Order: sequence, then structure tokens, then C-alpha cells
Amino acid sequence: MPLFILGSIAYDTIITPFVRRERVLGGSATYASLAASFFTNNVHIISAVGFDFPDSLLNVFKERNISLKYLKKIENKSTFYWAGKYFPDMNSRETIIVETGIFDEMDVPEIINEKPKILVLGNISPVLQKRTIQSFKQQPELIIFDTINFWIKNNNKELKEVIEMVDMVCINDEEARLWANDYSLKRAARSFFIGNVKYVVIKKGEHGAIIFFKDGEAVFIPALPLEEVKDPTGAGDVFIGAAAGFLNNSLEISRDSIIKALIYGSVIASFCVEEIGIGGLLNVTKEKISERIELFKKLSSVIIKI
Amino acid sequence: MPLFILGSIAYDTIITPFVRRERVLGGSATYASLAASFFTNNVHIISAVGFDFPDSLLNVFKERNISLKYLKKIENKSTFYWAGKYFPDMNSRETIIVETGIFDEMDVPEIINEKPKILVLGNISPVLQKRTIQSFKQQPELIIFDTINFWIKNNNKELKEVIEMVDMVCINDEEARLWANDYSLKRAARSFFIGNVKYVVIKKGEHGAIIFFKDGEAVFIPALPLEEVKDPTGAGDVFIGAAAGFLNNSLEISRDSIIKALIYGSVIASFCVEEIGIGGLLNVTKEKISERIELFKKLSSVIIKI
Repeated sequence: MPLFILGSIAYDTIITPFVRRERVLGGSATYASLAASFFTNNVHIISAVGFDFPDSLLNVFKERNISLKYLKKIENKSTFYWAGKYFPDMNSRETIIVETGIFDEMDVPEIINEKPKILVLGNISPVLQKRTIQSFKQQPELIIFDTINFWIKNNNKELKEVIEMVDMVCINDEEARLWANDYSLKRAARSFFIGNVKYVVIKKGEHGAIIFFKDGEAVFIPALPLEEVKDPTGAGDVFIGAAAGFLNNSLEISRDSIIKALIYGSVIASFCVEEIGIGGLLNVTKEKISERIELFKKLSSVIIKI
Repeated sequence: MPLFILGSIAYDTIITPFVRRERVLGGSATYASLAASFFTNNVHIISAVGFDFPDSLLNVFKERNISLKYLKKIENKSTFYWAGKYFPDMNSRETIIVETGIFDEMDVPEIINEKPKILVLGNISPVLQKRTIQSFKQQPELIIFDTINFWIKNNNKELKEVIEMVDMVCINDEEARLWANDYSLKRAARSFFIGNVKYVVIKKGEHGAIIFFKDGEAVFIPALPLEEVKDPTGAGDVFIGAAAGFLNNSLEISRDSIIKALIYGSVIASFCVEEIGIGGLLNVTKEKISERIELFKKLSSVIIKI
């Protein structure tokens, strides 16, 4: 069964204390779908690009068997553009330019007949997120939701409507605190258990992630300490995308398979941040993934000592 | 064998977004020794207080069998005073007032005859840290070292001399990055492996801690997600103190016993931050520790899923 990923395909300008790169391929759907493609051959992107997006750039998806059946080209708009600057700690950043015009024209397919196993609602307008859920004639087994500060500040009501319809919220710590207006991450996480939500994953960048279950249990997913972090852009999308890809290929969606999926999410994200843009994802091999899973096991071995 | 803890005994003024408390008992030796006292009955503090410190305040140590044999009262100086203000995220803070005058007069005992099992060099001037190591006729089995930004900025040379003499560096992430002048935590951690250092523990506040071994292996120690964080002051000292107390009571000092000790450090620190000042430590019981160890096990269960 297919994995559907809604999100942006973008040009990103990335400025770090060490490097500046203009208009590289980015966007939540790009990062998430590339990450998912390591685990499943059945990925559909739902997104749009503008007149300025050459077909040749789509090869990166085609080479990985990522279906572009639901990608629209909108000829009177330019592709989503984002420019961001990272602070010296490489954990926090500011948005310098964001051009979202294309999403005014973008709509999602009216009806999708294929039955999806998993639907990832990557960062994009909550209106599009909701419409996407409604497009499916048959509901996915798992809907994973992400968003960013911008929508929390400006579209709170629409976001709440979407969140109530999803199974898993996967959001970063700053956004969770903003959403709940509460510095306590534990309480902020709990505030997402509305409607259908069963799992809340709080992403903490270099500090890993925590998954909270509805019964209050929490499991920590560490992040590998890395020698070089060249560009954290897209790491959160990769984390979700890899986890969704792994689950799409799993026999069942359970607590254990979700935790295992997040481990793979953490490992694939560790490759992503080591190069600029999607560069870190392009040379990942099965062998490299296995090596890092071993490092991850050692890093997570604390429980064995007690 | 005894555990010796060098550090400050202080009056702290604590300002958080929610509360302000004037001149409560604090200081690195206070927090670390109270935390250690849950695990060992043989704790000596090496510190000094001023004329303004009433004997009645020392009862908190005496009630927990913490020896004050090496505590000096300096009659012409006032007790170390620190006032700090926490930012809304409760993770970062600024120092508003710091009065260190008493440490100009303070010296450590010239000779300490007792053979220590463990020596904790809590945050205090590196000159006093070095002299304390030299005071012991018989060297400790393990020397644990901590410091803060202030000494890294102002006493870099003296710090390096101390670090080379210790077995374990236990420092927070911001300080490690400042010391190494490197945003990469992994490289920053590695830069502490000079002289005698065998273990480097990077404390990350609410994000837990990572222990690095000389061979490059890393193990992550998560921190329990908490409902309420009222005051993070002293959490790092408690983490070290509890770990040192646990190790002081262990048969051997090994990789495994150190990791286990850090787990107890993380758990005792979780109590500390839930109340203002040392308040969170005063009502800890064996039962409460066991409960949190169980939560910690669940939080750390990721490895079991892979």
C-alpha cells in the first residue's frame, strides 16, 4: 500500500556560520519523501512547483521511484522559496525570506482512490492538510502531522481541526510550547491529545525526540552526536519521512514498530544534517545505515546498565 | 571510604518567570552533598561560609550525616552570594549579582590524611580545585571535575592544569562549546581528553546528558520529562553529587557502574528542579527514587525495540 506525503517542494537559500548556498532543492515533501524512499518503493508526493522549476530537477525523485502523479506544475506562480540563517549554535535559525505564493493556487486532488497505508501531512497550510485527508476515499491506517510556528501563530483554529483528525502529532519542542502556551514540555505534549490523536512525538533537534503515548508513558529517542553539522534544514522532515517509510513497510503499526521507526528516523536524520540541503541523503547506503544503527544501540544502552 | 566535595555554600536569589526567592541556601557543595547523602553516609564538604551564615542553617547537613570538619567560617567576609534570573524557557539564565569575595580568603586544608574514594571538584575557582587535589596524601580513586563559564573565560590556563589531573570532566554543553571554541559537541567533548581524563560527561539540562569514553563510545542518559520545573538551580551539582554518592557506595568504579551512577544522578536531579532551591531534595524517599527509576527504565527502553 502506498505512503502519501503532502508538503512543499521548495528552493531554499541556506546561510550557516560556515557556508551560504543559494536556491538549493528543499521543502518538507522533498526531504520526507527522499528519506522514506530508503524503506519503501511506494511513495507519492502531493505538492506543487512553479514555472521556474525545471523538469530535470525532478530526476532526484524519479531515480528513487517516488511517484509524482500528484505533483502539480502551476505556470503562473514561482516555486515556494525560503531563505534562512542559522545562529552559531546551529540549533536555532531565523527566516529571512519566505515566498508562499504558490500555495494560494495549489489545491490537492479532489479524490484519491488508492488506499494509503500512511499519510504524512508535512509542514504546509492546515487548509491543504485538512483537504488532503478529505480527498481519500479510503482512510489511511496512520496519519502523521507536522507544522511550524507560522501556522500556529496565524491559523490556530484550522490547525486544531486538522490535529483532531490525525493519529500522530510530530512537532518540535519550540512549536509544542508555543501551541500549548506552556513551558512544560510534558504538559505541552499532553495538550495535543485531542480528537483522534494517539501518539505525540516531540522533536528536539540535536537533543533527540520523545514519544508520548496517551496513557502517559514516554520513550526517549536519542540523536547520534555528530562530528559535523553543516545544515540542520529538513532534519525534522527526514525524521518523519524515514519513520513513515519504515512503517509503510512494516507488518503492523504498533507501539513497538513506531518506536523502531523513529529510531530509523533519527539515524537517517543524522545523515541529512552532515551536508548542505539534500546532499547528505544522496549517498546513504544500507551499510551506512546499519553502521549507525550499531552506534545508536550503544548510545541507547543505558537501560542495560540498570 | 569517604567522598569529598569541594564547592561553594551560598546564598542564592532565584528569579524565575513564576517566582522570586531571596537568599535561599544554595551553592555547588550544598546541592552535591545533599544529593550524595541519599547513597552514602560518608560525605565531607570542603568549603567556607562568612560571618552572616548562622549555625542553624548547617543543620540541613548535620541531619544528613554530612561532615563539616573541613568547612571554614571566615569572620571578615560575607557568604558567597549569587542572584540569577531564568528566561521563560527555564533552560537559560543570566547572572545578575555574584559576590565571590569569600573565596579570596578561603583556602583548602593543607593536608588531608583520610584516603578518599571519590573527590568531587564542584564549581569554584580552579586554583582551589588544584590545591584540593594536592592536599590529599593519598589520591582518590576517582576525581570528578565541574566548572562554569566564568572560569573558562577568565582562568583558562589554571583550568587546563586542573583538568589534566582529573579522571572525569562533567560540564554543561554550553561550557564545553565555550571551552573548545567549537559548536560540535562531539569534538568539544573530545577536547577534554587531556592528561588523566578518562570520562567526559556533557550535561544538557532538560535534554539529559551524554557520557563519552576515551575510545569514542558514547552513551546517552535521558532526563525525565517533568510536569513542573520550578527552579533548575543546582540540578547539575545534584546530578554529579548523586552519581558520586552512588559510586562511593559501589564495589568498583567501572564503565557500567559509572553509567548506573549517572542514571541515579539524572533521577535525583529530577526531584531538585521541581521545587525552589534545595526544597525538592528534602522530601525525597527511597520509594520515590524507585518509582522514578521505573519511569526512567520506560523512558530508556528504546534499545529493547530494535
